[in-house]
This record gives sequence, structure tokens and C-alpha cells, in this order.
Amino acid sequence: MRARVRASIERQSMMATLGVELIAVERGRVQLALRHDDRFTQQHGLLHAGAVAAVLDSACGYAAYSVMRPDASVLTATYTINLLAPAAGSRFTMTGQVVRAGRTLVVCRGEAFADGSAAPFAVMQATMTALYDRPGPRG
Amino acid sequence: MRARVRASIERQSMMATLGVELIAVERGRVQLALRHDDRFTQQHGLLHAGAVAAVLDSACGYAAYSVMRPDASVLTATYTINLLAPAAGSRFTMTGQVVRAGRTLVVCRGEAFADGSAAPFAVMQATMTALYDRPGPRG
Amino acid sequence: MRARVRASIERQSMMATLGVELIAVERGRVQLALRHDDRFTQQHGLLHAGAVAAVLDSACGYAAYSVMRPDASVLTATYTINLLAPAAGSRFTMTGQVVRAGRTLVVCRGEAFADGSAAPFAVMQATMTALYDRPGPRG
Amino acid sequence: MRARVRASIERQSMMATLGVELIAVERGRVQLALRHDDRFTQQHGLLHAGAVAAVLDSACGYAAYSVMRPDASVLTATYTINLLAPAAGSRFTMTGQVVRAGRTLVVCRGEAFADGSAAPFAVMQATMTALYDRPGPRG
Repeated sequence: MRARVRASIERQSMMATLGVELIAVERGRVQLALRHDDRFTQQHGLLHAGAVAAVLDSACGYAAYSVMRPDASVLTATYTINLLAPAAGSRFTMTGQVVRAGRTLVVCRGEAFADGSAAPFAVMQATMTALYDRPGPRG
Repeated sequence: MRARVRASIERQSMMATLGVELIAVERGRVQLALRHDDRFTQQHGLLHAGAVAAVLDSACGYAAYSVMRPDASVLTATYTINLLAPAAGSRFTMTGQVVRAGRTLVVCRGEAFADGSAAPFAVMQATMTALYDRPGPRG
Repeated sequence: MRARVRASIERQSMMATLGVELIAVERGRVQLALRHDDRFTQQHGLLHAGAVAAVLDSACGYAAYSVMRPDASVLTATYTINLLAPAAGSRFTMTGQVVRAGRTLVVCRGEAFADGSAAPFAVMQATMTALYDRPGPRG
Repeated sequence: MRARVRASIERQSMMATLGVELIAVERGRVQLALRHDDRFTQQHGLLHAGAVAAVLDSACGYAAYSVMRPDASVLTATYTINLLAPAAGSRFTMTGQVVRAGRTLVVCRGEAFADGSAAPFAVMQATMTALYDRPGPRG
């Protein structure tokens, strides 16, 4: 499962460009890490919310992927993100966790932490779709 | 107003890295464009949803900014994005439009189109906060 | 199609209890009306957001239903509602409109207006699922 | 604090009409209960999602209220709900929990459980606004 997730991440140039690192994969739970990068900042020099959202969405997508049948691919249908505080720090950990896995929809929660902080600076509620008969962006 | 929005975009390295272009600014409505870029793709070689979300969020944020007092800065509190279809194409236009502007919260809708298509491939409902006494990421 | 939507509304005791009225059905667009009712107020005597959300969700659900195959039933997977202003007035019109209809997911937008007002007091972005092999709440 | 929350619930006729019961209040966490009621069902005789959403939104709203200054009132700005399974059962517990409390925005998560079940059948991510100078629906 870890190999399947790792291989999928490696096929996404966006994840490589952002420098995303796979920290942990268990059934229904995936952790990714992201470092501060001056190419992806907002005007105060902090990591842009767009980079945070992209990696949190990926953590949720891979968490969903980890509970799907091996022939499934996964697609983000929709997510809601709340940005609770600026992404202040040099390294960030993003966790995606399955809340409920149905036949075609898997609902996940995501949390983003600056390393060393116990309070998330962003949270996500995401709805992922399983595709069984055609390749999706992570399949 | 256009100058204020342009200056703010130029201060965000994320927007420069993504190659975002300002197309139009009116009171309550902002259009940005984004080109396909191999650095920001998912594994089928199409533009990653993370890049789409980042620019759509920015279009909504700048639309909100365009109706705020000049001393305000704007922050994304939360958004919901629905990804309706893959980002197939070479150039994409993202529109943010104010739905209702309150004292501290401005609600916007965003739509992403591949050039030449009349149907959006992504839609957003976003809640922006005005900050009056401290700088925000777009202020 | 109108008959199918009307029959489904009549089978929902919640819609009858709220006094929901079917105003218009076209392919991809449904309008419902709701009157102020003292049983469904918040503490300032205005219509409770819960009643608004329930009817807006239904307008979106029926709009999705109107574009599905006759053997489908429809289920709300998720929605995001923004409450823009209090529900002040005696009668409210709620519109659900299909944005994109896929094989299993239909994305809709909803808008709630107090009669006589051109600005919505609530907006919704909703994701509906089509069920083809088992009955859903509106099927 | 418990008295403040209880008094506010009692001023909402919607909560009385739905038969909502206050189970627990702590700082940042509120639990409400709701019984099955034939007046609030969908067409398969199960509790309507609209009733679930209204009570979950209230649990989140009161959780936010419990961390605000005594002179504040609270308003739902926006929420996202995922309906994971039908509301099958005779009694339901809805929990609202503060994730992060800012100056004007408080973000909460809600979970709805059928009594006896450990898996939520609905989850919510909600953004509440504090009003300091005018009464809101729960203030």
C-alpha cells in the first residue's frame, strides 16, 4: 500500500515541484510533509495557502486511496478548507484521515500542523470519489 | 483599484511561480489567467487541482479586496471547491465574483474555465475576511 | 418531470411540516417557496437557518433529480451554505440550479431570496449523488 | 455557561419544535440530542437531513458561544456538512467542538451519531462569527 501511494506521488510533478515528502501511510491515514519554499509564498513571505491546500488535499486523497480496492483510482470531488492561522514555520505536516468509506464516496478530514505545534493551522473536510473503470489523477 | 490588485499579485511569489496573469478587475469581479505548466501537473499530465484551487482562491480574494476600504487587507477564511472535470487545455481563466459584502466577511463565487469552453471545470464558494488593523497576505 | 418532483416532495413529511411549496421545475432548475412560521424561528423571531438550509438543500436535490435518469434516486452527499443575512420577510424563494451533471455526481448551486429582494440572503454549493440500484430519500 | 447556553436554546422555537435536548456543555464542546420524529422525515420514514443539519449547526454554534466573551453573540457564517449514512435510529447525539477560536471567527467540527453507534453518520466543518455590538440569533 505504501509502495502504491509512493509511486502515485512520484507520478505527480506538482508534488515533486512542491517538494512533498511521504511520512507515513496506514490504512485510512496518510501523512505528508512540506518545507517552506520561497517560490510558494504570499506577500509576507509565508507559505501560500494554495500550497497548503494542495498538499492537504493530497493527504486526504491518498488516505482515501489506501482504503480502496487495488483497481480503483481516486479523484477529489470537493473539499472545504478553513485557514485558521498563517503557515508560519519551516516544515509542515499534513494528515489525511478517512472518516467514512462508502462504495463510491470516501469522506476524509485533513489537518495541517507547523512542526512543533499541537494546534492545526488549517483543517479540511474532503469528499473523494472512487473510479473503478478508468484512470484518475492518482490511480 | 486595478493598480492595487496588480501590486498585490506581484508581491506574491506563488502567483509569479504559477505564472498567473491579471486579465480584468472591476468592482467586485476579478479575472485571472493561468497557463498549463508541466511543473504543476498530476500524473496524467493535466494541470493539478492544487494549482486550479490556488488561482481560483486568489481570484475570489482579489474580488473581495476590490470592494473593501483601501486600508483593509483580505484573508481567506474558508472555501469550498468542486472539481467538475479535469483541467484539460493550455490556458485557463478563473473568475472571482462578490456575492455579498458585509462588514468583516465577504462571500464570493469562483468559476474556472478552460479557454474556449463555456462550462466551468471547477466552482468555488469562498468566505473572505477583511482585516482593518493589521496586514494580511494580500493587503 | 414536474409530477415526479411533486410526488417526491409529498412523500417527505419534513417538507409538509415546513409548508414547502413547489413553484417551478425545469430541466436542471427547481424553485421552492417557504413562508415564515413561528414554529421554526431563532430567538429574534426570524426564520431559523436550519429551515432555510433544509429547503435550499431540497431545491438543489430536486434540480439534480430533474436531470437524472427516471430510475435514479438522489442523495445529498455534501453541501456548503453561506448565510449572508437574516431571513427577514414573510415568504422566501429558494432556487436550485445544476452546474454540472456527471455520471454519479451532480453539482448544484442554490440561492435563497426573501420575496421582493434581488440579493440572496443565503447561497449553497451542493454535491448530489445518483443512486441507480436502490432507493434514496427522494427516489 | 451551561445556563447561558440553555437559555439561548430555549429562546429558539425551532429547537423546541425539533425537541432538541441539551446533554452537555463544557468550554469549547456542546452535545445536543434529538429524537426521531415523524414530522421531520424524508420519504423512507427516516429523519430528514435538514433536521440533522439544523441541530449539528446548533451544536457547533453553542460550542463557539461557550468560548466567546459573555457580551458576544454568535452567528453561523458558513458550514459544510457531509451526510455519510441515513439517520437510522430513534435518538441521535450531535457534538460540536471548537477547533480554533480567533477574534471574530471560531471554527468548529460537528459529528452526529445514532445512539449506540461509534461511527458518525454526518460530519460538519463550521465557521462561526462573534458579534460584539449587536444581538445575533443565539446572543
